[in-house]
Amino acid sequence: MDGIRNSLDQSLRERALKVVPGGMWGHMNAAALPEGYPQYFARGLGSRLWDVDGNEYVDFMCSWGPILLGHRHPEVDAAAQRQLAQGDCLNGPGEAMVQLAELMVELSGFATWAQFQKNGTDATTTAVTIARAGTGHRKILIARGAYHGAVPWCSPSLVGVTAEDRAHILHYDFNDIESLHRACEAAKGDVAGIIVSAFQHDYGQDQHLPTREFALAARAAADAAGAALIVDDVRAGFRLNLGGSWENLGVKPDLSAYSKCFANGFAIAAVTGNDRFRDATSSIFTTGSFWCSAVSMAAGVATLTALRRDDGIGHMTRMGQMLRDGIAQLAEAHAMPVRQTGPVQMPAILFEDDADHRRGFAFCSAAIGAGVYFHPLHNMFLSVAHTPEDIARALEAADAGFRAARAVSAAHD
Amino acid sequence: MDGIRNSLDQSLRERALKVVPGGMWGHMNAAALPEGYPQYFARGLGSRLWDVDGNEYVDFMCSWGPILLGHRHPEVDAAAQRQLAQGDCLNGPGEAMVQLAELMVELSGFATWAQFQKNGTDATTTAVTIARAGTGHRKILIARGAYHGAVPWCSPSLVGVTAEDRAHILHYDFNDIESLHRACEAAKGDVAGIIVSAFQHDYGQDQHLPTREFALAARAAADAAGAALIVDDVRAGFRLNLGGSWENLGVKPDLSAYSKCFANGFAIAAVTGNDRFRDATSSIFTTGSFWCSAVSMAAGVATLTALRRDDGIGHMTRMGQMLRDGIAQLAEAHAMPVRQTGPVQMPAILFEDDADHRRGFAFCSAAIGAGVYFHPLHNMFLSVAHTPEDIARALEAADAGFRAARAVSAAHD
Repeated sequence: MDGIRNSLDQSLRERALKVVPGGMWGHMNAAALPEGYPQYFARGLGSRLWDVDGNEYVDFMCSWGPILLGHRHPEVDAAAQRQLAQGDCLNGPGEAMVQLAELMVELSGFATWAQFQKNGTDATTTAVTIARAGTGHRKILIARGAYHGAVPWCSPSLVGVTAEDRAHILHYDFNDIESLHRACEAAKGDVAGIIVSAFQHDYGQDQHLPTREFALAARAAADAAGAALIVDDVRAGFRLNLGGSWENLGVKPDLSAYSKCFANGFAIAAVTGNDRFRDATSSIFTTGSFWCSAVSMAAGVATLTALRRDDGIGHMTRMGQMLRDGIAQLAEAHAMPVRQTGPVQMPAILFEDDADHRRGFAFCSAAIGAGVYFHPLHNMFLSVAHTPEDIARALEAADAGFRAARAVSAAHD
Repeated sequence: MDGIRNSLDQSLRERALKVVPGGMWGHMNAAALPEGYPQYFARGLGSRLWDVDGNEYVDFMCSWGPILLGHRHPEVDAAAQRQLAQGDCLNGPGEAMVQLAELMVELSGFATWAQFQKNGTDATTTAVTIARAGTGHRKILIARGAYHGAVPWCSPSLVGVTAEDRAHILHYDFNDIESLHRACEAAKGDVAGIIVSAFQHDYGQDQHLPTREFALAARAAADAAGAALIVDDVRAGFRLNLGGSWENLGVKPDLSAYSKCFANGFAIAAVTGNDRFRDATSSIFTTGSFWCSAVSMAAGVATLTALRRDDGIGHMTRMGQMLRDGIAQLAEAHAMPVRQTGPVQMPAILFEDDADHRRGFAFCSAAIGAGVYFHPLHNMFLSVAHTPEDIARALEAADAGFRAARAVSAAHD
């Protein structure tokens, strides 16, 4: 990368190194990305994204999920602006909170109520606390390797975490009914909740949809244990099914955790649930300074209204399928086999024979240079703003990516 | 209250009861407030607030702290709008993140870095995790009754909380050096952090500033234990001292947690710290979907810039002193003694002989009817937008409040 392409980005990274530990932290840290990826961004519009140096990208990360309708969606931003012109964070919520709860209940396949937070981690932590309050039990069953947030009870890192933070966590393997039953037995009648991601979307791994048998077994296991079945829909919610990601399977959770995309980038999270856990939800104390702020609520109403009206999920599915088919054709043409897994709206692309990620990183570096923002290890996200032209541009960039992947393979072999 | 005064509020409460457990949750739940308080708000401007029924209030809660310069401050909102017109939540932060970290470090009396979150609880939880990572110790010392957030390790409620969530929490009493030393001894060399509120602001209690002796002892105890001294400045930060609330005392923490007001109502939180904990901060994993969103960062830069330029803290201090003096005169004139405690920018007013809060509630109900939003139990907040005219209106409402408090006292005696 030459100085023109990333000079502002570099200068911001240098300034940040002085006043932010390590220069950056968390999932947006570009240090984990291939060469050529920018750290700092200036703006977004629809399916496009510009870094601080003015480079334009077709965006397949959608801000790691939050952008559902496209960047700066006019209806959502207008709703947010109207609310902002009146007030955002006041001494209590505005009418928009009630409207959003009503809309989420109306859309849901199982929930009769909603409660709002800011982070996905707030939603999963609240759901776990509700499960414990409602059941009087303590153990939480989690799929090995699943991401449910970044606080001590669930963080993927154990640095700064104590053993007691995990004292009541037991593990099972996703889609493995036997392992779920073993975890239930190990809990000895003390299961508060079984938490399960909408589908298996572990970092750097192939994605797996839940089997219907596994979903039914999880429901039955929760019932037998007197526990809550909690679907973590933070990442997938509203990209697979308006009513909740497990509606496709015909299995209804007791509680669901949402965040990321349902206000199209405005900060919000939610727990939704059924009547069995309504009183437990009232019984716990959970709150945050900005959880009732009205702008995100108004944005949420506008986002879900547009998503439903325009069959946004259908559109993302069509565009995602077009991308998947095109990538498969390119992989075959280049004789560079890849595994494309998960729902087409949330694609993961991993190269065969790529344990050191050399091919995936080369693929992505070439694509970013060609103006398309892919991710080599994390699942990606389609938005309603993606067009066939965007997919065509993505496939041109992918073509360059496959050539680069072949080149590093050849150099390495 | 008649139907015109609160009919929309009542109708929203009824709708919410169906789709939100208990109709509302958390610190903004009006069920904990005296008769006549609205639950739902429509807008704010400067020092004023309007509920959904159009009733206007001089606001002394400032959204429970987040409003520092006044509702819809023109410079802050313009900065937020400029950023929103480009993008908010993108694939990484914008330049505003670096600017905000630089400004917070420049203002701080001790910090060389900042890292951002969304909730005050995110900041306190991150600070505790950093302290554990940096020291290799586990125990966290907390003042009995102090509020540091609403998740299991620190929530004021134990519903849905397990014993293990508190396994490494030890208590001391605020301003009690002996109790702090006893807690350190009980930790047997395993103290990771001593967390202490900027001042004691427990719900329903008189407020107490830390003594200089206590602050020095906390610093010395942390040093002796190889632990982090963490000042929880979430509630008080930037209302007492631009450089951190303990700058007044000449005692420097290792880590501080901020949230609430430093983006004037836009959702943000921060941990700031010294070089001793810089590497530990890089070593932990903490993140959130919206933690790098640029609008709150831009609002933070605008808020702190205006606060410093206009000596906002000086103004809040003068207005707060005017309110305190006026309340003291009224209390004497009505022969209804009250205790006014804490910094004048964050006043708490509690009636003598009022264990059942009858007097305080009557006072506040009368005041809300007269168009002034006080709180009977929680500390209140001045903003830079409060004017002498606002204080005069507040004192008129307080006059009605004292009459009402006298009436319920007489009826009760």
